[in-house]
Amino acid sequence: MNTIDIINKTKRKEPLTREEIEYLVNGYTSGEIPDYQMSAWLMAVCLNGLTDEETLALTLAMRDSGDILDLSGINGITVDKHSTGGVGDKTTLIIGPAAAACGVYVPKMSGRGLGHTGGTIDKLESINGYRTELDFDEFLNIVNQTGFSVISQSGSLCPADKKIYALRNATGTVDSIPLICASIMSKKLAVNADCILLDVKWGTGAFMKTREEAEKLAAIMEKTAKAAGKKCRAVVTDMNEPLGCAIGNTVEIREAVDILQGRSKGRLYRICIELTADMLELAGKGTHEECAEMAKKAISSGRALEIFRKTIELHGGDSRICDDTDLLPKARYSHVICASRDVEIISINAEELGMASLMLGAGRVCKSDDIDRSAGIILEFEAGDKISMDAPLMTLYSNVCSDFHEAAMRAYKAIKFRNLTERTLT
Amino acid sequence: MNTIDIINKTKRKEPLTREEIEYLVNGYTSGEIPDYQMSAWLMAVCLNGLTDEETLALTLAMRDSGDILDLSGINGITVDKHSTGGVGDKTTLIIGPAAAACGVYVPKMSGRGLGHTGGTIDKLESINGYRTELDFDEFLNIVNQTGFSVISQSGSLCPADKKIYALRNATGTVDSIPLICASIMSKKLAVNADCILLDVKWGTGAFMKTREEAEKLAAIMEKTAKAAGKKCRAVVTDMNEPLGCAIGNTVEIREAVDILQGRSKGRLYRICIELTADMLELAGKGTHEECAEMAKKAISSGRALEIFRKTIELHGGDSRICDDTDLLPKARYSHVICASRDVEIISINAEELGMASLMLGAGRVCKSDDIDRSAGIILEFEAGDKISMDAPLMTLYSNVCSDFHEAAMRAYKAIKFRNLTERTLT
Repeated sequence: MNTIDIINKTKRKEPLTREEIEYLVNGYTSGEIPDYQMSAWLMAVCLNGLTDEETLALTLAMRDSGDILDLSGINGITVDKHSTGGVGDKTTLIIGPAAAACGVYVPKMSGRGLGHTGGTIDKLESINGYRTELDFDEFLNIVNQTGFSVISQSGSLCPADKKIYALRNATGTVDSIPLICASIMSKKLAVNADCILLDVKWGTGAFMKTREEAEKLAAIMEKTAKAAGKKCRAVVTDMNEPLGCAIGNTVEIREAVDILQGRSKGRLYRICIELTADMLELAGKGTHEECAEMAKKAISSGRALEIFRKTIELHGGDSRICDDTDLLPKARYSHVICASRDVEIISINAEELGMASLMLGAGRVCKSDDIDRSAGIILEFEAGDKISMDAPLMTLYSNVCSDFHEAAMRAYKAIKFRNLTERTLT
Repeated sequence: MNTIDIINKTKRKEPLTREEIEYLVNGYTSGEIPDYQMSAWLMAVCLNGLTDEETLALTLAMRDSGDILDLSGINGITVDKHSTGGVGDKTTLIIGPAAAACGVYVPKMSGRGLGHTGGTIDKLESINGYRTELDFDEFLNIVNQTGFSVISQSGSLCPADKKIYALRNATGTVDSIPLICASIMSKKLAVNADCILLDVKWGTGAFMKTREEAEKLAAIMEKTAKAAGKKCRAVVTDMNEPLGCAIGNTVEIREAVDILQGRSKGRLYRICIELTADMLELAGKGTHEECAEMAKKAISSGRALEIFRKTIELHGGDSRICDDTDLLPKARYSHVICASRDVEIISINAEELGMASLMLGAGRVCKSDDIDRSAGIILEFEAGDKISMDAPLMTLYSNVCSDFHEAAMRAYKAIKFRNLTERTLT
């Protein structure tokens, strides 16, 4: 087998065999195939696509490049959940404990944020003492005790994906549905839960800008997971507006606790109930309606919050934040933006708010960047709300005050208003 | 400027600016842009193409990556000629001296053969003593004395092309018309002759397999040369059959001398008269008919052969071969293939004959391979000829006898016969 022949086949839209794809993935992971050949192939994939069979073969070859977890030590059915990433997406912190409260096990490995999208590991690390790097036995032990644990993705999982992802980032070959599918699904299949719920976001704040693209990605991911023997459902959700009112790390933990405390029933709550119901349904816990009822009760009864509290404790974190979120680290500076007249909120550009939050220090431009965990944004409205003159629109938080002005401008411009006083569009 | 943005633009078919293309070429040549980014861009170009303006900018950026020759020391109008390469293409050795005999100057830099196609430098080096690596002053001096010289391409010309070409070879990104155009034309423009004749081959023995592709390449090369201020004509010629009867190195010198001696007036002679006329017409020497007459006289008068003899002498080569080609080095072994019945030749697959010649040792698989200069093939027919049973079809030459059988099989299969005895197609 010859790498140039393989590149040429994809360039000419001739499908590759499973053996050819394995040769490529294994050769690249071991270093026998150089970066420059792999990047040429990746670009050919970006422009010519892959068949569903090739996508499956690529996913499995990447999965098999490293360890596959053995979850048989967990005392029940396991459900994994993956979101393709968005602005203010803290759903894992809510639906993980809620699903666990209904009798399934949620062993989750998660990543860090990059660019305008956040990462669950960064959010959890804003809780004092929370350890995200546990060994596998400790992780299983927590899952068995509480039903829920989130740790950093192990370095021994999918080394092929790590190497290929870094190369895609450097060569303009990120936006390809088969490559995104293989990257996500190789990791999910290596984590190896019985059921997988995929939450594919679309809109300004998501990687997929249109619903159509998101649906394509959802379909191929679900097909790939099923072909690999998993129960899987992929749902497509709107990420044109941020998910909830908080964007950042500490501020998002605060919002998640608010929901788990049963104090907030807005759009984020409703989405979390739906996703939890999807997870329970996949695990065979009942019809969707029955599962949604179970999810609501898990929260209203306080059982989901108890699971979250116990999980934080077992991870070494300060679980008192479940009663008093004021114990979370606070930013040194805050900046409130108020409405300059009576307005109605027409829409919110999630990507732009994500970028503003990044400017405040809550996110990373490069993988190696440090982040400011208490930086972020809290919105005081949802789309459709009416705000009176001089009432607060949002609060910006940061530990450095130098970038406030530019970040505030960006955040302000992310919101589209209707001026209620003069009845004209501004 | 950012390499990933540039890659993304080409991936999305958005045209690049001249500055962006210069950034890419200069950055890659200097080593600031890594191979893996360049190869991703090259693959995007293979699949999405470049506009004519981008192709021109790429060609000029590559030309400007190294020296541009100053030919002002030559005492008249200079004409360069380039063939896209074929099997048995020894035209330079004939039309160079013929054009020089008609008053133009032909300062030519040439390359070595690779794969089934030969290179003029290899052919000239099969003449004992002929030096192909001269310094620039000696080269100019020979051109001024005889009107014609061929040397190896200088290492200081188009370093960008050398680096990009090696990468294309290793990444399946060779077959792209804009990339081929930039590679050829950057070198031609760096040699910097007043007029450029381009001979674009198509067919089994050429790089372009169809006439349509060859015409596209010819059109963009001519347009690029003109935009760079040169007089240029690109002609498209058929390379489904080998050019002449000899394929190899020594054997091709022998055939070229035969033509220059006026002893052969077949298809190769006619093509050479046409190409010489094109060169003279470009240089303003008259109408095409007038120029063709001049070319014929240059050969029939023996003036072209005298120029070839003098040029060989000034290059240190044994010029006696111009009177007696038996002085050229001979292969130790030869193998004659005869017709097994009365046949008519329908067609000859040039690529397959080139491959057979390669197997005999006349060519290179890798750039670093040594070649056997006296190896090769001499055909005893042209397409359409009738051959009697037991008459020779071709002779194979080599200094190693081990590969004869396989090469002979391949050469024999390259010829399509009509069986005259039984009047059926075989």
